[in-house]
Formats: sequence, structure tokens, C-alpha cells
Amino acid sequence: MDAAARIERALETALSRAEGHAGGPAGSSRSAPPGLANAIRYAVFPGGARVRPRLCLAVADACAIDSPIIADNAAAAIELMHCASLVHDDLPCFDDADQRRGKSSVHKVYGEPLAVLTGDAMIVMAFETMCAGATASPSRLPGLVTALSRAVGGPSGIISGQAWECEPEIDLVQYHRAKTGALFAAATSMGALAAGESPDRWRPLGELIGEAYQVADDIQDMISDAATIGKPCGQDAAHARPSAPRALGLEGAVARIESLLRDAVDAIPPCEGAAELRSIIAAQAKRFVPKSLGRHAA
Amino acid sequence: MDAAARIERALETALSRAEGHAGGPAGSSRSAPPGLANAIRYAVFPGGARVRPRLCLAVADACAIDSPIIADNAAAAIELMHCASLVHDDLPCFDDADQRRGKSSVHKVYGEPLAVLTGDAMIVMAFETMCAGATASPSRLPGLVTALSRAVGGPSGIISGQAWECEPEIDLVQYHRAKTGALFAAATSMGALAAGESPDRWRPLGELIGEAYQVADDIQDMISDAATIGKPCGQDAAHARPSAPRALGLEGAVARIESLLRDAVDAIPPCEGAAELRSIIAAQAKRFVPKSLGRHAA
Repeated sequence: MDAAARIERALETALSRAEGHAGGPAGSSRSAPPGLANAIRYAVFPGGARVRPRLCLAVADACAIDSPIIADNAAAAIELMHCASLVHDDLPCFDDADQRRGKSSVHKVYGEPLAVLTGDAMIVMAFETMCAGATASPSRLPGLVTALSRAVGGPSGIISGQAWECEPEIDLVQYHRAKTGALFAAATSMGALAAGESPDRWRPLGELIGEAYQVADDIQDMISDAATIGKPCGQDAAHARPSAPRALGLEGAVARIESLLRDAVDAIPPCEGAAELRSIIAAQAKRFVPKSLGRHAA
Repeated sequence: MDAAARIERALETALSRAEGHAGGPAGSSRSAPPGLANAIRYAVFPGGARVRPRLCLAVADACAIDSPIIADNAAAAIELMHCASLVHDDLPCFDDADQRRGKSSVHKVYGEPLAVLTGDAMIVMAFETMCAGATASPSRLPGLVTALSRAVGGPSGIISGQAWECEPEIDLVQYHRAKTGALFAAATSMGALAAGESPDRWRPLGELIGEAYQVADDIQDMISDAATIGKPCGQDAAHARPSAPRALGLEGAVARIESLLRDAVDAIPPCEGAAELRSIIAAQAKRFVPKSLGRHAA
């Protein structure tokens, strides 16, 4: 089964569990409220590029993982956290975004109360899913829980990243490291942890790819139109948010992506599947620089 | 150290970790955004009666726990989840409550964006805290993560309970079991799990106390004034929410509390500390029925 199918299967299992159709306590016949169940499903399927869980699986496979189910569930947990952050970021009190992934945002379809609860529920599901995946190797669970918590919570996870937007003064590097880099670093760290490897030497790879991804996202926000990328554009300027192309110019931002991705490939630690991992990263990286800007990062 | 002090210490450690002052990755000097850190602290301290974490510790102690630090952190995790649910329930899109625990609600002081993020961060902190407490006995972590996830997430945790309010038709029993009972059942289950005991025989005790607590809360909402209980009153009627005294009448609701608490005391499984646990529950129970209604539940 390829990586994409493994991720979708793990997400489907997580959602079925939360809906009460699988994995509940013995004898339980309870079902989740239909509105909440539908909103969670709407927020998760169909997905975007699933960049973070793919990176997690690629690292786990490169480490020659002995029990792929742990990695599949860790990858699903990372994607659930990412989806949760999108649902909450789109809320009227933040970006007030009507569109996400080419369709109406969750609060536009299900209302603000269910959008808040959908994000909350997906944060919980992420931990539950990771735990369900680790039953065969429970000794790997503490490391995975800690890695995911730090990537999402304080002081420098994605929630803190979002909270920097509420501060009068903001450090651009710290902001992006928290808002985007943290979950990418968790993707590589957790891929290694799922395989029973030390996470520390895998963090820089995730951090560098995350930083490149953030610059690419900022460029898209500046130069694309909403129909192309399936969400509102010009949001950084509209919300006076820090943005790489606003700080470096478009040319400078593209050069920054290329430099970051070269460093990322160099940061892959020696491992059985290093060559394949390099080609997976190169393939993903081609999507980071819009074609209209001509050059491709390797 | 008494139970109250143990709970406050575990919460303080959890907050320091999230703020970046303790327990971060080696060499890390990052701090959380000040607004978020302040809002989390405001939501947690000073606390309410800490009923749920006290129940968790009482059960762990009754089971003669070998490593109290696990129970302290499990208790703190339960309280963090409870505080997170209060912050989100108070948001304008739900109860739109200006007051909580006798002071302004989080979104009134810190704004809606930070209130959303504060709840999100506390959900993550709960799992991180539980994990930090289980380092000495990692084999107990999977059970604790699963119990906490089920109490908070779907299909029948507190988030689903809140989501039932968004449905056109609602089952009163299922609603209260999810919205309140689930976290009380987790308190007794997790107390047992922290002590290395099977959680199943401890669940009914938590469920019964939780149901009694919910009826008591509904009575308070109906008959008290905001100055006495530190939060808005008459909310059930204002939001057309299901409520025991609205369904059973005041007399009937008080009788229901008394009956539930008798069943709760009978549901304590045989254990070393059963007598002390009975007296702790009796002491807490006296607070469930307002003095103005005359009788006290035992």
C-alpha cells in the first residue's frame, strides 16, 4: 500500500472511532452528535497535499520501520493537528476565511460553535490515534506524545505561533518556526520515533522543509488567486502579517526556498533509505515554487 | 502534602513547562507569547473547587498508589481539560458569558482569538502533563491517554456533550453523561489507572458523582444569583438548554441528587482506603445541595 493510501486509511479509522463506529469501549453503542461528526469529516476529507504525514512516513520508511502501523497513526495524528489548526485559523476571530481547500470553510457550512468543537475534537483525536497505533510498542508512546505536544502547544508549537499574531511586536523567525516549522519538525522527529530511532538528528530536516514550505505559502498568498489555491489570497497584507516575500521581495523569497531545500537534502542523516528519501523530498520540492516564477528548486 | 497542594503544584509545573520556563528541550530558551501565557494562567488560577482532580487523587490514594506523581499529573490533566472546556463554553458563539469563577471570562479580558488558543493549548498541555507524570511507569500511559481521550473527544466525551446543544433533538441522559459525567468517570478511572488498577470497576462511581454534580449545577443555575456563584445564572432557561430542575422540579431534582450519591457510595469497590474515600465523598456531597433547600445529601 502506498503512502497516500496508508494515510487516508489511518485517518478513516480515527474518524470512525470518534464517530462511535469502531474501537469504542466494549458494548458501547453510542454515536457522536451527527453535526459534529459531519463537520470533522468535512474538515479532514478530501485533504490537501498531506505534506506533513507524507514526510513522517518517508522518514519512518527511511529508518526501516519494523511496525508501519505506528508510523501510519503518527502521520494521521500530525494531519489531524494540521486540520484542527486550519479550522480554528479560519474562524471569524482570526482570518475570517470563507474558503479552504477549494470549498467553504467549516464555520461557513456548520456554524461557528461546531467549528470550534471540530478543532477541539481533532486535537484530542490526534493523541488518541497515536496511542491506538502504539499498542504493539507502548515504549515508543511517551516520546511520540511529547514530540506532538511540543509541536502544537507551548512555548514554541503551532498554537504559540498563531498567538504571536496577537502580540504588538513579533520576531519573524520565531513566529514562522512555531507556526509552521514546529509541525514539520514533528513530522520527521515522529517518523524516527515511530521507528524506534532517536528524533534529534531528524529534527533539522523537518525544520528546513517547514521553513521552505512557509516561504512558498507566503509567495502563493501574494501572487495567486483564490480559484487556483482554493483559499483566500492576499491575507498576509490584509492582516498586516509578517511574510517572507514582503520582507525579502519575490526574487529573494524564491532564492531562500532554494537555499533551504539544498540544506534540507544535506541534513538527511545516514540511513538505509536515504537515497529514496532524497528523491521524495526533491519531488515534493518542485511544488514549492510556482511555475510562473520560472525556476524550480531541486 | 495534602491533595489541594499536590494539584496546584502539578498545575504550576504544567504551566511553567508551557511558558518555556521548565522542562523544555535541552538548550531551549524560547518563551511562549506573553498574551497566551497570561491567558492560560488566568484560566487556571485561582481555580474553582477542583472537584474532578480531587476525586482522581482520592481514588488513587484509596488504591494505595505506589507513585503519587503519576496521579498528581493525571489529576492536573483532568483539571486542564475542564478549564479548557470552560474557556471555550464561555465564548460568544456558545454561552457568551462575561463572568466565570467570580471574575471576567477569558475572552472578555484577553479577546476572542486568545481565548480560542488558550483552550486549544490547555487540551494539548493535558496530554503533555500526563505523559510527563508517567515517565517512571510508562506502561500506564496508554491506558491514561485512552481514558482521557474518550472522556473529552467523541463519541461521548465532553466535546460531544457540548455539540449535542447544536442538534435539533437531544437525549437529556446522553447529553449530561457526555457533557459532565464523562470527565467525572475519567477522574475515577484515571485514579485507578495511575495506581496500576483496572479502571472499569471504578467508572460507575465517577459516573454517579458526575450526574449528581450536574443536577446540583442545574439547580444553582436556576435559583442562585451571579454574585453568589461567580458566573451568570439562568443560562439554561436563556439558552433553552435541557436541565434537571426544569424537567423534574426543584424538589425532584434534590431527591435525585440524594439518590445518586447514595448509589455512588455503594459503588465504591472494595479497596484499602474505602472508608476514607467514603468520607471524602460525603464531605464533597454536602456542597451539592444549596443550603436554602434545607436537606443535605449524605
